[in-house]
Amino acid sequence: MRLGPLFTDLYQLTMAQAYWASGKQDSRATFELFFRKCPFQGEFAVLAGFDTVQQLLHQFRFEAEDIRYLKSLPQFAHSPESFFEALKSLHLNDIEIKSAREGEIVFAREPLMQIKGPLWKVQLLESALLNAINFSTLVATYARRIRMLTPQKTLVEFGLRRAQGPNGAMTATRSAFLGGFDSTSNVAGGRHFGIPVVGTMAHSFVQSFYDEGPLGANQPNRGELAAFRAYAQTFPTSCLLLIDTYDTLASGLPNALKVFEELKSLGHRPLGVRLDSGDLAYLSREARRTLDAAGFGDAKIFVSNELNEAVIQSLNDQGACIDAYGVGTHLVVSADQPALGGVYKLVELNGHPRMKISQQTEKLVVPGEKVVHRMFGKDDIMICDWLTTVQDSPPKVDEEVTAIHPLDPFKRVRLAARRIESLLSPIYSQGRWLADDSLCESRRWSLNRMDQLRPDIFRRQNPTPYKVSLSPTLKALLDDLYNKEAPVPRIH
Amino acid sequence: MRLGPLFTDLYQLTMAQAYWASGKQDSRATFELFFRKCPFQGEFAVLAGFDTVQQLLHQFRFEAEDIRYLKSLPQFAHSPESFFEALKSLHLNDIEIKSAREGEIVFAREPLMQIKGPLWKVQLLESALLNAINFSTLVATYARRIRMLTPQKTLVEFGLRRAQGPNGAMTATRSAFLGGFDSTSNVAGGRHFGIPVVGTMAHSFVQSFYDEGPLGANQPNRGELAAFRAYAQTFPTSCLLLIDTYDTLASGLPNALKVFEELKSLGHRPLGVRLDSGDLAYLSREARRTLDAAGFGDAKIFVSNELNEAVIQSLNDQGACIDAYGVGTHLVVSADQPALGGVYKLVELNGHPRMKISQQTEKLVVPGEKVVHRMFGKDDIMICDWLTTVQDSPPKVDEEVTAIHPLDPFKRVRLAARRIESLLSPIYSQGRWLADDSLCESRRWSLNRMDQLRPDIFRRQNPTPYKVSLSPTLKALLDDLYNKEAPVPRIH
Repeated sequence: MRLGPLFTDLYQLTMAQAYWASGKQDSRATFELFFRKCPFQGEFAVLAGFDTVQQLLHQFRFEAEDIRYLKSLPQFAHSPESFFEALKSLHLNDIEIKSAREGEIVFAREPLMQIKGPLWKVQLLESALLNAINFSTLVATYARRIRMLTPQKTLVEFGLRRAQGPNGAMTATRSAFLGGFDSTSNVAGGRHFGIPVVGTMAHSFVQSFYDEGPLGANQPNRGELAAFRAYAQTFPTSCLLLIDTYDTLASGLPNALKVFEELKSLGHRPLGVRLDSGDLAYLSREARRTLDAAGFGDAKIFVSNELNEAVIQSLNDQGACIDAYGVGTHLVVSADQPALGGVYKLVELNGHPRMKISQQTEKLVVPGEKVVHRMFGKDDIMICDWLTTVQDSPPKVDEEVTAIHPLDPFKRVRLAARRIESLLSPIYSQGRWLADDSLCESRRWSLNRMDQLRPDIFRRQNPTPYKVSLSPTLKALLDDLYNKEAPVPRIH
Repeated sequence: MRLGPLFTDLYQLTMAQAYWASGKQDSRATFELFFRKCPFQGEFAVLAGFDTVQQLLHQFRFEAEDIRYLKSLPQFAHSPESFFEALKSLHLNDIEIKSAREGEIVFAREPLMQIKGPLWKVQLLESALLNAINFSTLVATYARRIRMLTPQKTLVEFGLRRAQGPNGAMTATRSAFLGGFDSTSNVAGGRHFGIPVVGTMAHSFVQSFYDEGPLGANQPNRGELAAFRAYAQTFPTSCLLLIDTYDTLASGLPNALKVFEELKSLGHRPLGVRLDSGDLAYLSREARRTLDAAGFGDAKIFVSNELNEAVIQSLNDQGACIDAYGVGTHLVVSADQPALGGVYKLVELNGHPRMKISQQTEKLVVPGEKVVHRMFGKDDIMICDWLTTVQDSPPKVDEEVTAIHPLDPFKRVRLAARRIESLLSPIYSQGRWLADDSLCESRRWSLNRMDQLRPDIFRRQNPTPYKVSLSPTLKALLDDLYNKEAPVPRIH
C-alpha cells in the first residue's frame, strides 16, 4: 500500500489550504521536533527512525488519485482549483532539515530536528515525521536501558508477534538493534537491515512428538526426548533446546542432558537450553548447576517470558545464571511507557520567533530557531546542552557562559566547556537525503557515546537530569514573548 | 518493502526443517489462536485484523531471494537442498482456517481461529497471524470500551503520530472504526478504508498569525483573532476553532465568538470549538455556557489531550459539556494494556489431542480440536460459550448440558440454550479468502452484537466473567492427558 503525503492528519491539509487562502503559504517557517519528558522515567533517549523519515520524504508527492480523493471530501468541496494545482506540483526541494545524528543521546526540551522551508510544506510534514521518530526512539531507548543493565549478556529481540502490524515489527527490530540488542528472531527484519537472526523451537515442536508409547507421569517425558533428538540431528552444531514444555527440572533438563551427551559423543558442543516459564532465577541456577556438574559448563542458558527492564534487573540482583535474554512484548510495547510524546512546533516565522503558550507550564515552547551547543567537560564528559538564539555568538572553549533552566528560572549555572559540538547538522537539503551512516555504524557510535554520559544520568533509580539550558538571550526572548502574547487572565 | 513468509520468527523455519528431517512435516495439525486474559481488565474483546491476515496469507510464497537469504544464514548452512525445494514450492492450498467473524465479541481461553493443515505449514503461519490479530483486536476492544462509555458522543481517532510506524497507524485507524469510532484524522486511512476523516487546525496555525500589531497582554490575542478569521473565510461551512493557544477563556473563546458572529451574519452556522489543554471539565462547561448565552447552542465542543477510558469516564461523571472526543495515544498504545497476549498453540496432531503443560496453571492449553457452541438464553442474550470435542454430539436447543470451567473444576453449571450458534466458520480454504464482509458491515454487526451481551460483562468496574466452559468429555480429555504427560515433580 502506497501511503504518500496523505499519510497525515487531515488538519495539516485544511491548514495548508487556509495558509494559501491567507497568502501565508510561503512564509519562511522553522519548526522544531522535540519531546517534553524522557521516556521510562529516565533522563535520556536514543534518537532513531531515520529509515522511516527517509522513506516518507522520498514518497512525499501528491499523485492524481490523492488529489481526486481530497476533492471528494466535504471539507474540500469548495476549495479553489489553484490549491489542488499547488498540491500536485508540491516538491520538497526548498525544505532543509537539520537533526541530531541517528543514535545520538538526546534529552527533553531540546530540538532533535529542525525543519525549515515554506510554512505550508513544513506543516504538511509534521504527522509523518512524528510517526517516524516517536516509536523508533522509544524502542531504541528501551533497548539501550536494558543494554546498560546487562552489558555482558546476549540480548535478542522477540517482539514480532506483539508489534503493531508488520511495519511496527520491522521498525522495532531495527530500533532494538540500534539501541544495543545483538540479534532478532524476525527473519525479514534480519534480512532487510542486516541484523543477525536467531531462533530454535517452540513448545509445539516438542508437543508434536507424542507417538513414543507411554510417556510416563513420573519420569522425563519420552515425547520430549524424541523431539530433542530430532532437533539435535537436524542442527547438531547449533543445538539449543526449549526445556519447559512438560516440567523444566523433572523432564526438560534430564532429557536435554541425555541429548547433549549423545551430541558430545559425536564430537559436537551443544549450544544450550531455553527457559520460557516458571521462576527463572531459581530454574536458571538449577539448570546451571546441573549442566556444570555434567561437564557442559559452556552450554548457555537463554530465558524469555514477559521480560522487561524491572524483571531483568531483579534476575540480575538474584544472581540468576542467565547468558541471554529474549525480550519481546515489553520492548515493542512497554507498559512502562507505551508512547513517546514527541511534538513538532512552530518556533519562527519570517524571522519572528513564535511560541506556543499553555496553561500547563510544561507545555510552553521555547520560541525562536535555536542552536544547540553540546558542551563537554573534563574527561570529555557531556555537561550541558546549551541552547542559544541564532544571533547569539557561539560559545568558545574555556569561556564561561550562563545556562538557565527553561522552565525554572531559579536554576542557573555557569560553565566553561573544554570541547563543544553542534548537536544538529543537515540531513536533508535540496531534495537529497544526507545522513548516510549505516545502521551498524550508528549503533557502534551510539553505544560508545554512552562513555561520554555521566552514569548517574542513565542509572535506573532516580537518575540525575542532564542540563538542557538556555542562554540569557534566549531566556529573555522567552520571557518577553510570553509577556507580550499571553493575556493575564482575570479570575473571579 | 515486500515482507512475504520471511516475516516470521526464525524458529518457525528451524522447526520446519526439523519437521522435514523427522518426516513429520505433513502430519495433520490443528493449531488454535486464543488469548488467556481479556485486555484492559475487562471480560470481552472485539476480534479484528482480518485485512492484515488476508494480506499475509496472500503474499505467503517463498521467492528465490528469500531462499538465497536463508541459505546464507549459519543455521541453514548444512540444510539439504530438498528442504529449500520444499520451501520454494510451498503453497497454502491445503490450509483451512476457521475463525470467529471479524467484529465478533470474543472471550478468554476460547479458540478465535483454528488453523488446520500440514504441520510445517501451519507452524510457519504462527508469527504472522499473531502479529495481525493481536494489535488490531486490542485497538478494536479499546475503541469499543470507549464507545460503550459514551454511546451518544462523536469519537475521532487521532493516533497517527504515536502509532508504530505508518502501518501501525493504518491498522489502528481501521480497528478503531471497527470498534465503534466515527472517524479519523488519518487521511490515508480514511481513503484506504472508506472512513470519514476530520480535522481543522493546530496551534501552529494560530501562532502563524502574529503580524497584527500589538497583541496585548490583557485582552484577547489579536493574532489568534486573525487566524480564526482566516480559517472561517476558508471554511465558512465547517468552521471549528482551536481555542487554547493563548488562553482558552480570556482569549480563545471571546475571539471565537467574534468570528462566529461574523459567520452568522453571513448566514453560516459555525461548527464549534476544540479544547486541547487545561481542565476539560471546567473549560467545557464554561465554553458551553458562553456559547449558549451568545445564541450558539448548536455549536459543538470537541476535546482532545491525552484522553483515555478513565479520563472520559471522569469527564462524564463531572458533567462535562463535550460533544466529541479525539483519542490518540491511548487508543493506539494504551498504558492500561499495551499488548494483547494472543497465542497460537498446537492442539491436535494426526487426530491425537495435544496439550501444552505448564507450571503456570493459567498457561495450560485445553487439548484437542474444539467446537465452540455459543449458547443464547432468554431475550437472545449470550449465556455461555460451550467448548466440546469434535466427537461430542452437538448440543440441542432446550436440552440441558453441563458446562465446566477449564481451570477451576469447582465451577460448573447446567444450562439449556434457546438458540445456538457456531462461533467458528471457514474464512480461508483451498487458497481462497472467504470472509468478504465489508468493514462497515462488520462494524454495524459488531456494534449491534453488544445488545446480546449482558451489561455487567462489559461494564468498567468489576465486570462479570462470561462463561467459556468445557463439555464433560473435553474436561475428561484434559485431565487424562495432563495425568499421562506431565510428570509429577518430586520436591526435596
